[in-house]
Amino acid sequence: MSKGLTSRSDDYSQWYNELVTKADLAEHSSVRGCMVIKPYGYSIWEKMQAVLDQKFKDTGHSNAYFPLFIPKSFFSKEASHVDGFATECAVVTHYRLKNDGNGNIIVDEEAKLEEELIVRPTSETIIWNTYKGWIQSYRDLPILVNQWANVVRWEMRTRLFLRTTEFLWQEGHTAHATSEEAQAEASQMLDVYADFAENWMAMPVLKGHKTANERFAGALDTLCIEALMQDGKALQAGTSHFLGQNFAKAFDVKFASKEGKLEHVWATSWGVSTRLMGALIMAHSDDQGLVLPPKLAPIQVVIVPIYKGDEELNEISEQVLIITNELKKKGISFKYDNRDTQRPGFKFAEYELKGVPIRLAFGGRDLENNTIEIARRDTRTKETISREGLVDVIEKLLEEIQENIYKKAFDYRAEMTTEVNSYNEFKKVLEEKGGFIAAHWDGTPETESKIKEETKATIRCIPLKNKQEEGICIVTGKPSKERVIFALAY
Amino acid sequence: MSKGLTSRSDDYSQWYNELVTKADLAEHSSVRGCMVIKPYGYSIWEKMQAVLDQKFKDTGHSNAYFPLFIPKSFFSKEASHVDGFATECAVVTHYRLKNDGNGNIIVDEEAKLEEELIVRPTSETIIWNTYKGWIQSYRDLPILVNQWANVVRWEMRTRLFLRTTEFLWQEGHTAHATSEEAQAEASQMLDVYADFAENWMAMPVLKGHKTANERFAGALDTLCIEALMQDGKALQAGTSHFLGQNFAKAFDVKFASKEGKLEHVWATSWGVSTRLMGALIMAHSDDQGLVLPPKLAPIQVVIVPIYKGDEELNEISEQVLIITNELKKKGISFKYDNRDTQRPGFKFAEYELKGVPIRLAFGGRDLENNTIEIARRDTRTKETISREGLVDVIEKLLEEIQENIYKKAFDYRAEMTTEVNSYNEFKKVLEEKGGFIAAHWDGTPETESKIKEETKATIRCIPLKNKQEEGICIVTGKPSKERVIFALAY
Repeated sequence: MSKGLTSRSDDYSQWYNELVTKADLAEHSSVRGCMVIKPYGYSIWEKMQAVLDQKFKDTGHSNAYFPLFIPKSFFSKEASHVDGFATECAVVTHYRLKNDGNGNIIVDEEAKLEEELIVRPTSETIIWNTYKGWIQSYRDLPILVNQWANVVRWEMRTRLFLRTTEFLWQEGHTAHATSEEAQAEASQMLDVYADFAENWMAMPVLKGHKTANERFAGALDTLCIEALMQDGKALQAGTSHFLGQNFAKAFDVKFASKEGKLEHVWATSWGVSTRLMGALIMAHSDDQGLVLPPKLAPIQVVIVPIYKGDEELNEISEQVLIITNELKKKGISFKYDNRDTQRPGFKFAEYELKGVPIRLAFGGRDLENNTIEIARRDTRTKETISREGLVDVIEKLLEEIQENIYKKAFDYRAEMTTEVNSYNEFKKVLEEKGGFIAAHWDGTPETESKIKEETKATIRCIPLKNKQEEGICIVTGKPSKERVIFALAY
Repeated sequence: MSKGLTSRSDDYSQWYNELVTKADLAEHSSVRGCMVIKPYGYSIWEKMQAVLDQKFKDTGHSNAYFPLFIPKSFFSKEASHVDGFATECAVVTHYRLKNDGNGNIIVDEEAKLEEELIVRPTSETIIWNTYKGWIQSYRDLPILVNQWANVVRWEMRTRLFLRTTEFLWQEGHTAHATSEEAQAEASQMLDVYADFAENWMAMPVLKGHKTANERFAGALDTLCIEALMQDGKALQAGTSHFLGQNFAKAFDVKFASKEGKLEHVWATSWGVSTRLMGALIMAHSDDQGLVLPPKLAPIQVVIVPIYKGDEELNEISEQVLIITNELKKKGISFKYDNRDTQRPGFKFAEYELKGVPIRLAFGGRDLENNTIEIARRDTRTKETISREGLVDVIEKLLEEIQENIYKKAFDYRAEMTTEVNSYNEFKKVLEEKGGFIAAHWDGTPETESKIKEETKATIRCIPLKNKQEEGICIVTGKPSKERVIFALAY
C-alpha cells in the first residue's frame, strides 16, 4: 500500500481522483477521455446493474439491443435533438485500413462511407426508426424496452466515472398510445431510480423537473434525481424524459387507435450510467477510502487471520470455515484473506480503502476465548465479541450500516440545504457554504442564464410536490409561487 | 400470424432468415450489417450470458471493461494481429459535426483526430497495453479478466447472428507467469464452452485445435468447439487461444519472477458471441419454428385457456393459478396467455414458432375431469393427463426434452460424420451428403489451401485426444498420423 489519500478538506478533487485509482475502481486509458473500469470497480457496477435490471423487469420491461452506429442523417430529423447531440461525437468515416507499402497502416481512402456513422451518444433516433416497423396498431403498444450499452460523447475535460468520452449506461425507450400513459411511465421510472438511489446506494435524492434550459434535447419534460456530494456540489444521478410525440413525428411512427384513427405514438426515455459510481464514491467515502453501502458491496465481510506459525493459522482457518459456511447460507458475501505475503495492518488498510463494510480479525487469543474482533467501516469502530451468534450480529450490523450511511448523507443534505431570499444572500451561501440553495425565481430562462453566468450555479430541479409559497425572484423581484433548488453541479 | 415458414428442405437459408425474424429474435437495422436484437431474442441471449458468466466466475474470473476505441498504432505492434484485424474495420477520424449554414449537418474538418481510432474488432491490444501498468511481479499474476462487450468487424455479406458488422460477445484475457499455466487456462475455458454447448444448448461439439491457417491472428494455438448444423455445415461456436508471449512482447509486459528475473508474461484469450444464437437456432429448430432447449428457454411452459364466455375463463384462470404458483416454487418459467384478442390456434402456432418447450391447453372439459392437455414442442406430440402431480410431470418432461434434443443432434452428427480415404470420395461426400468429413491430411498449409480453393471445405479442427492411425493424405499421398475434420462452414 502506498501512502494514504489526500484528505477531502485539503483537496476534494484530488482526494476523489486518488481514491478511484487506489481503490482499484477505474483508471484512465491510453485513449483520450476513455476509462478502464477495473475488476473491483466493475463488480460494484455489476451489483448496481443486477438490482436495476430486476426493477426494470418487475415493472414490465424487456431488454433488447440496437446498433452502436447511427447514420448522420438520423440526427437531423428531430430539430432540438441535433443541436444537443450531433456536435461533439465520434464520427466513423471509413471502413478499411491498409498498408501504405512502407509498413505504415493508413486509412484506405477508397473505403469512405457514403454517409458517415455516428457512434451513439444516445439511441432515440435509431430506436424510433426501428419502432416504426414494430408499431401498426394499439395492440402493439405499449413497447417497454431497455438497453444496456456503451455510449460516446466527445468530452474535452474528463473525470473518471463522472464525465468520460465513453461510458456505460442503460437507456429505456418506451412507446405508448396516450400522453397520460407515457407521462405515468416517465414518472414510474423516476421513482424506480429514486428507490434505487435511496435504498441501495443509501444516497438521498431530490426528485424534480428540470427547467426548459436543462431539459433533454427533444423532451417535453425531463424528470431527474439530484444528489448532494460531500463537497456541497450537486450531481444529477438519473433522468427520465417525457418525449411527447417528437420522435414519433420525426420518424413517422403512427398507430391505428381502437377507433381506427391514425395517431402519432407517445414516448419516454430514461437512463442512468456509470456516473452513479462517481456518486456512490463521493456520497459516503472518507479520508481512509471508500465507504460502500452493504447492499452494493461486492465483499460484505472480510476476515483477516492474525497468527504465529502455520499451526495457529490452521486452527484459525478451521474456525473461520465454520463462520464462512454460515455466511454462505445467509447469502452474505465474504473474503477470507489468508495471504502470507502481507501483514494484517496492510490488509486492514487495504480493505478500508476498498470500503468493505465489516472486517473480522481472528487472532490466537480468540481461539481460546471463542471471541473475534469485529470492525465496521462506516464508523471505524471495533470491538471484541463472542463468536456465539456471530453471523446474526453480522447480518444485523450490515443493515445498521446501510441505514447509518443513509442517515449521515441525509443529515448532511439537510444541513447543506439553505433557503435564501436575496441574490446577495444567494451568492454568499454559494461561496461560503455551498449545497442546495432554495430560492424564488421568476420562471424565465433569461434569469436562470444570468444566474448561471454570474455564479456558475444552475437550477438542479423544481422539486415534485413542491411547497407552494408566494415570493419574489431573488434577481428580478418578479412574483414567484415556489422555490427551486440551485447548486453548483458536477 | 402470417403464413408458415419456408421448409428446411426447400431452402435452408431462407428458412433460417424467416425464422429469425418471424420468431422475433432479431432483424436487420438501417445501419448496413448491424442487427437489432429484439426482446425475445435478447432474453435468450441473457440466459446464455447468465450461465456463462457464472461459469467464468466459478473458474476464478472477474469482469472488467476496456475502451471501445483502439488507437490505430496499437494494431501495428503485433505483426500477425495487424493483418488479421486492422483491415476491415470502423475508423473514427473526426470528433465533431457542424451545421454548414444551409441546414445540413457535416463533418467538421477542423475536428480531425491526430491518430485515427478503430472501433475494437477484439481487444488484445488495448488490454495488453493496460496490463503493462498492472503487472510488475509474479504476485500480480495471474490476471483472470473477462469483458462483455460489443465489437465491430466490417463485413461485406452479413447474416443475422451468424455474421454481422457489430456483434455482442465476451472476451476473456488472462495473464500468467508460465506457459504451462496459460495453456491450462486456454484448455479449461474450452471445456467451459463445450460444457455450455452440450449441457445448456443441447448441442454436441467437437473440441480440437485449429490448423495454422485457421488460427487466431497472434495466437500460438487456437482451440475451438465445432458444431454441426442441420444442413450439414459446420459452425465454429467458440475459441480459446494460447497467445504465448506475443502480446506481452508487443506491449513490453514483463514481470519479476520469484527468482527476481524479468520475464515476459504468458497470455490467453477466449470468446463466444451472439453467433451462438445462430447455432442454437440451426441446431434444433424445425419447419414449425424454433426448438429451444428448456434450460435456455425464456418461457418454459405456456398455458393457453380454451373457453366459452367469461365465466368459464374465470374458472379456468382460478385453476391455472394453482398450477402457476407451483411452477413458481419450482423455478419453472411460464406464461399464461389469456389474451382475448387471439384464438387458441393462433396462440399454439405462435408458441411453436417461438420454441416454448411445453404447452398446456386448459379447456372446459378439463375443469370437470381434472385433466389438462400437455404438448411438447420437440416431438410435437400431445396427450391429456390428470392434473394430479402435473408440475412433477412438467419438471421431468423439461429434463426429458433437454436430453432428447441433445440426443437428436448427437445422432444426426454421428450419421453425418464420414470417414473418407480418397480425394474423390471426399468431394463426393462433400457434395452429396455434407457433414463432418474425417480424412488424412499431410499437415501442410499448402494442401489445406488447395482443398479449400477447390472445394470450399476447410479443416474445422484436429480433434483433441484424436485417434492416432497411420494413413496417407487424400490429396498428396504423403504420410499422415491422424484424421482431421473437414466441412463446409458458416
